[in-house]
Amino acid sequence: MSIKKTTPTCITIFGGSGDLTKRKLIPALYNLWLDKWINEKFLVICTGRNEMSNTDFIKTLKEGVDQFSRRGKADTKEWEKFSSYIQYKVADFTKEPFYNELKTLIQKFETDASGTVVNKIYYMAVPPQFFEPIARLLAKKEFNTDKENARLVIEKPFGTNLESAKELNNCLLSVFDECQLYRIDHYLGKETVQNLLAFRFANALFEPVWNRNFINHIQITVAEEIGVEDRGNYYEGSGALRDMIQNHLLQLVCLIAMEPPVSFEADEIRNRKVDVLHAIRKISKDTVHDFSVRGQYGPGEIDGKKVPGYRGEKNVAPDSGTETFAALKLYIDNWRWNGVPIYLRSGKRLHDTFSSITIEFKPVPHQPFPEEASETWQPNLMVMNLQPDMGIRLRFQAKKPGLQMQLNPVDMLFDYSDTYASTGTPEGYETLLLDVMEGDATLFMRADQVEAAWKIITPVLENWLSTDPASFPNYAAGTWGPQAADTLLTKDGNNWIIMPFKKNNHA
Amino acid sequence: MSIKKTTPTCITIFGGSGDLTKRKLIPALYNLWLDKWINEKFLVICTGRNEMSNTDFIKTLKEGVDQFSRRGKADTKEWEKFSSYIQYKVADFTKEPFYNELKTLIQKFETDASGTVVNKIYYMAVPPQFFEPIARLLAKKEFNTDKENARLVIEKPFGTNLESAKELNNCLLSVFDECQLYRIDHYLGKETVQNLLAFRFANALFEPVWNRNFINHIQITVAEEIGVEDRGNYYEGSGALRDMIQNHLLQLVCLIAMEPPVSFEADEIRNRKVDVLHAIRKISKDTVHDFSVRGQYGPGEIDGKKVPGYRGEKNVAPDSGTETFAALKLYIDNWRWNGVPIYLRSGKRLHDTFSSITIEFKPVPHQPFPEEASETWQPNLMVMNLQPDMGIRLRFQAKKPGLQMQLNPVDMLFDYSDTYASTGTPEGYETLLLDVMEGDATLFMRADQVEAAWKIITPVLENWLSTDPASFPNYAAGTWGPQAADTLLTKDGNNWIIMPFKKNNHA
Repeated sequence: MSIKKTTPTCITIFGGSGDLTKRKLIPALYNLWLDKWINEKFLVICTGRNEMSNTDFIKTLKEGVDQFSRRGKADTKEWEKFSSYIQYKVADFTKEPFYNELKTLIQKFETDASGTVVNKIYYMAVPPQFFEPIARLLAKKEFNTDKENARLVIEKPFGTNLESAKELNNCLLSVFDECQLYRIDHYLGKETVQNLLAFRFANALFEPVWNRNFINHIQITVAEEIGVEDRGNYYEGSGALRDMIQNHLLQLVCLIAMEPPVSFEADEIRNRKVDVLHAIRKISKDTVHDFSVRGQYGPGEIDGKKVPGYRGEKNVAPDSGTETFAALKLYIDNWRWNGVPIYLRSGKRLHDTFSSITIEFKPVPHQPFPEEASETWQPNLMVMNLQPDMGIRLRFQAKKPGLQMQLNPVDMLFDYSDTYASTGTPEGYETLLLDVMEGDATLFMRADQVEAAWKIITPVLENWLSTDPASFPNYAAGTWGPQAADTLLTKDGNNWIIMPFKKNNHA
Repeated sequence: MSIKKTTPTCITIFGGSGDLTKRKLIPALYNLWLDKWINEKFLVICTGRNEMSNTDFIKTLKEGVDQFSRRGKADTKEWEKFSSYIQYKVADFTKEPFYNELKTLIQKFETDASGTVVNKIYYMAVPPQFFEPIARLLAKKEFNTDKENARLVIEKPFGTNLESAKELNNCLLSVFDECQLYRIDHYLGKETVQNLLAFRFANALFEPVWNRNFINHIQITVAEEIGVEDRGNYYEGSGALRDMIQNHLLQLVCLIAMEPPVSFEADEIRNRKVDVLHAIRKISKDTVHDFSVRGQYGPGEIDGKKVPGYRGEKNVAPDSGTETFAALKLYIDNWRWNGVPIYLRSGKRLHDTFSSITIEFKPVPHQPFPEEASETWQPNLMVMNLQPDMGIRLRFQAKKPGLQMQLNPVDMLFDYSDTYASTGTPEGYETLLLDVMEGDATLFMRADQVEAAWKIITPVLENWLSTDPASFPNYAAGTWGPQAADTLLTKDGNNWIIMPFKKNNHA
């Protein structure tokens, strides 16, 4: 497939001097540019409040690329060319004057592009309280009128509960059309996450068993070894449920559980995904504790080093009730999934860092082998490793070599890094930024998706916010979370499955 | 699972000075002994016509072990202990006197075993014309009376057509009970072949798609690079159809296509297998050419070296009409397999040496991806590599890493040698000899199986024997056989799939 250059594009990054710009956005744009996706007619306007010369600003961006680009240190000559597209504007983007200046810049860019269509992308890499004011000012100054090519990108978090998400949607939709809005969940840009759709719908082999008749349960883990780091301020108002489950994990549920789409049109995919969210059984207020577990890490050890508990972290209240771990059990009430539990968990300061989706299949309907053959029998597992290792592991039973029929679990492995070692894997932000430039909203969240996801967690969230987590901290840093998260599964006869992705099977 | 020593055993090998004894039987018994399967009360009587001292005989056996044992050179001390169980008897086993002597030896062994049950195994490692005389003489001298523990092992070939197989069965069954007969197909002892049952019936994941609704076709290849070597004499009267298809390949068809067994009882498994043979659609005489292809190699190149054609080999007629390549297309007329073609091929002097079973699945029912995403789309394949590499390859479609949705076939691999590197894999003959000692006939051919297999190939065999293969030789050594074997599949829209088993996927 050949590379099709984007149309001339002007990107305005609000929060241009912030971390996201430096770590993710500029490295992604630089890599897109190196890979020849970007039109020569290109302009990146970064706006922030930090007083800085353009030269100094570009220097800090280069440091970001050197440190965070998947390709490593930037080539000096290439960087010089690329960075000539970047302009830094010190400005207060909550005030009108900046937008007048911006208008002039963009109009000049459009004139230079001499009559061709120009993408105008407004990227809000700012704290959420600025989403509304920026959107309104953009509208006031008529940056929203080009319905085809003016696009607004909204970073997470999208609201802090159902109500605030609805308000934000109402505000944005009062000034932009839905088709102009690109709500980012960077998880959806990951190769392994995108591959879920390819895996399910380009293969005839798996879909026939992808339902309640053959699947015992599904579990999704997004585990982090790191603690809250310097994000205490933000995290205190969020917690694991809102920070991870409401967006990333529920989106994974959608991809794993959705019905086959008719096409890859953005709205077709998003319709099938939102169908899943709508089918998730509502957790009633009085059963919240049967379907959810919250946790907060206390002091512990990570890799042999003592680390403080959450309440000892910077900018965290010494009696904080914020959860750093959340687990949910969900049911999808439709024909395909009725009765199949979906377990989700995510937490900080856990024993390891990985994201994976595990499908445990039901046992064989009849076991013809002699009892002693099956001593080590295990159900079939399909483990989709999303990060940091990327691959798929299919655990099945084989005859153990030897003179008797003895069964033994072994693995079939597909390893992204083996298969695609030379090509390299684009970062999620590269995919997503290119999609915005191409006007493809498939991997972005639609208003109804965001609200449906909030609806699912609302009863849990309200329960947690209104009741005292007396047991906090209830897991030591470096463990797999609170005991209750294990019980959530064991009471159903299941277990969390931790299976590091590596080449050697155990024999 | 612990090792359960066999009961005291006396094995008489007819044709004890032959190649099979040296290359296969003694190395297998030696390994079983090293692995502590063999009872200390053990005796191997090898009988042959070659005049040789016991010492010299044992020396040649040791050379055989050194050269052919999977463990390599025999340990001197261990070999000394093991070989003390072996006695060589120069004898004419077509005459009565030897059997009187044998009786004395075995009776002494039984007396020494003082009252415990003793296995008496008679292994016919002799050319097929001796099967009947030996069986009759054993019966005449009442070696057949211990229905529980006297067992007769019959090597291949079992008949040269349906009639002769029936005759041989009639003869054997007139003097032994079916439960005393162990018709060997050494293919069934191979680890990877035995694993077919484990793979199918210990995993809930594959059986649901193991039928006509999801499988497009099945193909089985048993390919050899070697020519007829010094077996011209035998091969002239056999050919690929009888030498390979009638036994090995049809047995593989049974394992791949059989219904789930209720248990692993010998007769249950064999019933399910023979069901498959009975369900195979009869090839009518006038459609033989639509369902079969024969070939004979002419001169060619193997690994850059010129090699002669079959007609130039030792003990081969210069106008020989014997086929060194055979391909069949079969249909199994039952609910599971109706309409799914099963292609078999086997040949000598082909381009490579390997045995594998490939399942090609049907395409996805609906392809939601944009057309350009699917340029390299391929159907799902399950390749079971039986030898020399042992493993399973599952070919599926994944998203090719990159900024666009592009599908690409990749592989999940299960590699026996990776997984079980340390354990080592027993040879087929170890498995089969131990099974004979344990009285487990599961992996042996029952009379009705052999006859059913002959019935399937009879129309083809009769056609080939009665018509002149005018085109012979019709493939060059070192190629993949005659053109017509390709056409056999291409006229159905299929192709032979050659997929070497190795770790690296193509990206």
